[in-house]
Amino acid sequence: MKIGVVDTTFARANMGKLVADEIGDNFGDIIVVRRTVPGVKDLPVECLNLLADCDIVVACGMPGAQEIDKVCAHEASTGLIQAQLMTGKHIIEVFVHEDEETEDRKLKTVVESRCRKHARNAVMLLKDPAWFTRNAGKGMRQGKDDAGSLSH
Amino acid sequence: MKIGVVDTTFARANMGKLVADEIGDNFGDIIVVRRTVPGVKDLPVECLNLLADCDIVVACGMPGAQEIDKVCAHEASTGLIQAQLMTGKHIIEVFVHEDEETEDRKLKTVVESRCRKHARNAVMLLKDPAWFTRNAGKGMRQGKDDAGSLSH
Amino acid sequence: MKIGVVDTTFARANMGKLVADEIGDNFGDIIVVRRTVPGVKDLPVECLNLLADCDIVVACGMPGAQEIDKVCAHEASTGLIQAQLMTGKHIIEVFVHEDEETEDRKLKTVVESRCRKHARNAVMLLKDPAWFTRNAGKGMRQGKDDAGSLSH
Amino acid sequence: MKIGVVDTTFARANMGKLVADEIGDNFGDIIVVRRTVPGVKDLPVECLNLLADCDIVVACGMPGAQEIDKVCAHEASTGLIQAQLMTGKHIIEVFVHEDEETEDRKLKTVVESRCRKHARNAVMLLKDPAWFTRNAGKGMRQGKDDAGSLSH
Amino acid sequence: MKIGVVDTTFARANMGKLVADEIGDNFGDIIVVRRTVPGVKDLPVECLNLLADCDIVVACGMPGAQEIDKVCAHEASTGLIQAQLMTGKHIIEVFVHEDEETEDRKLKTVVESRCRKHARNAVMLLKDPAWFTRNAGKGMRQGKDDAGSLSH
Repeated sequence: MKIGVVDTTFARANMGKLVADEIGDNFGDIIVVRRTVPGVKDLPVECLNLLADCDIVVACGMPGAQEIDKVCAHEASTGLIQAQLMTGKHIIEVFVHEDEETEDRKLKTVVESRCRKHARNAVMLLKDPAWFTRNAGKGMRQGKDDAGSLSH
Repeated sequence: MKIGVVDTTFARANMGKLVADEIGDNFGDIIVVRRTVPGVKDLPVECLNLLADCDIVVACGMPGAQEIDKVCAHEASTGLIQAQLMTGKHIIEVFVHEDEETEDRKLKTVVESRCRKHARNAVMLLKDPAWFTRNAGKGMRQGKDDAGSLSH
Repeated sequence: MKIGVVDTTFARANMGKLVADEIGDNFGDIIVVRRTVPGVKDLPVECLNLLADCDIVVACGMPGAQEIDKVCAHEASTGLIQAQLMTGKHIIEVFVHEDEETEDRKLKTVVESRCRKHARNAVMLLKDPAWFTRNAGKGMRQGKDDAGSLSH
Repeated sequence: MKIGVVDTTFARANMGKLVADEIGDNFGDIIVVRRTVPGVKDLPVECLNLLADCDIVVACGMPGAQEIDKVCAHEASTGLIQAQLMTGKHIIEVFVHEDEETEDRKLKTVVESRCRKHARNAVMLLKDPAWFTRNAGKGMRQGKDDAGSLSH
Repeated sequence: MKIGVVDTTFARANMGKLVADEIGDNFGDIIVVRRTVPGVKDLPVECLNLLADCDIVVACGMPGAQEIDKVCAHEASTGLIQAQLMTGKHIIEVFVHEDEETEDRKLKTVVESRCRKHARNAVMLLKDPAWFTRNAGKGMRQGKDDAGSLSH
């Protein structure tokens, strides 16, 4: 099994390393291929190319806090979905918006949690896709506490 | 006949089970294939792949209440339409937005109604598409009361 | 000549019937193929499939008044344009937004006018496309009074 | 050389004629093929079809002043870009928004200037593409005075 | 190695020249192919065509300050991502929004910095893609000071 990991130099944290470490530390049988691009809009084609050889790709980015950054993230996400439809393979998008938290320290916690949890999601989609159905509707979150299922 | 049902671990209710049960309980001749993915943006490619083998797919999701969640839902919907155009088959989108209701109890009612009604819609598109034309313009709703036709 | 007409059960008026009647009453030589789907987001693939056999399709919908309904309409429109580009054939979109008028009676007038005028547009695109060039820039409207050309 | 010109009956000025005249009066060797459609959302497929036979197409439209008109224009533009990517040929979009000016007289001036200048752009892209590089970054505008290059 | 550089006559600075100079002055072995189009919406197809022959393209534009200009930029960006997915090659988008700065002098500084830095990014993607991974998450910016990595 081979997982591609793509991140950016724009991001303010080494997201690709977090994802690669989470996979490498826990699933030694999986080959990780890492790539980095300037910003989130460069992710779609890089992921597409990796999917020629990888079973799944994790696409990491950290869009800025301004309105224009939101638009860039939207364009990137649209391209990532297109790349998936072109290949029939999943790309797990791991985006952390700079304005999710106001303190660097808290933002780092979000980044680390989201990267690690989605790294696991990517692995599980390959190794045990039925795991997701066993957890359907449980309000799972990455980077934040799980919301849980709706109470009665 | 084979119907694919895809939902998410992000959702706060087991929407896929509701759809699968509605079909299984009422149409025993239909095979249901169930899949679950992390979030709504992972739905398009999963649905596309299922359509290789299924006649129709029901795609369930429960976008959050924040602005970014609305954007994610929009991206997912765009991808779901693309997947339909690539295959020539329908994907019935069943999205419930977390902010449609403020109380968990009411939101669950919306989820259950929308899932079950759209499960029936998926079946009817396969078994009796003319049923829809007999009900054209009747202001049908899923998850809420029908709006009805415009009064004179 | 064969014209496809697709509408929805979500709409609060039988738009497909209005379009089909307008064509049937005035152009007896044209075959009308009618289909109905749940909502506007189900229109693109249905229209695409009809275009395999029809020369043009009229796609009718009546998006609701909420923000989310506007987004759905936008997604549907995007898909309808894609379906046209895939087939090289026109899809005439006939959307009436529920909030165009506040009274049911007035909204019905808009629906009827827009459906009938666009039914004629679909026919003319097949029978006499040069008619449009003779009327270029005349500020024509469907569902409302013509705006007319800019005054001097 | 063959240039396609497509406009709409929705527009409140005969934009296609302005473009065709500008080309015909100044470049007698160029064949102009004119088409008209109901509104801007009908432009993409019409332009796509013309590009099978034309070297470039000029797509004219005059979106209304309401929010929904802005959305329609956006959908049309997206489709026009897709049509270009499908054919590898340019479509010069000439859109004038009804609310660019409040007086009819002034709006007509914008329409005439934008149509004529973009007609010339279409010709130059065919006859002398290097002309554009000689004018790169000069803040050229169509329908308005040139903005010029940034001052020192 | 061959790099395409496309800019516009709409821009208020000769962005293409800045990019071409940065490459030519520092990497004499790289062939630069330059093209210019009217505005940002004309970039996608021009870039697509250049990618038939170039290894990467730098797409430069300077969207105006009005809401409609933001929409145009969004449409252009979407098309640029599509062109990348069609070719499997990168297009580095270098957009400077006119309202990023209020003074011409400051805006020119942004333009120059962003053009030159992204010219280098394009070269590095060809010559040493691993350089980006070595700089992943460092909060690099073009046209502005680097944001740096999140502090502890």
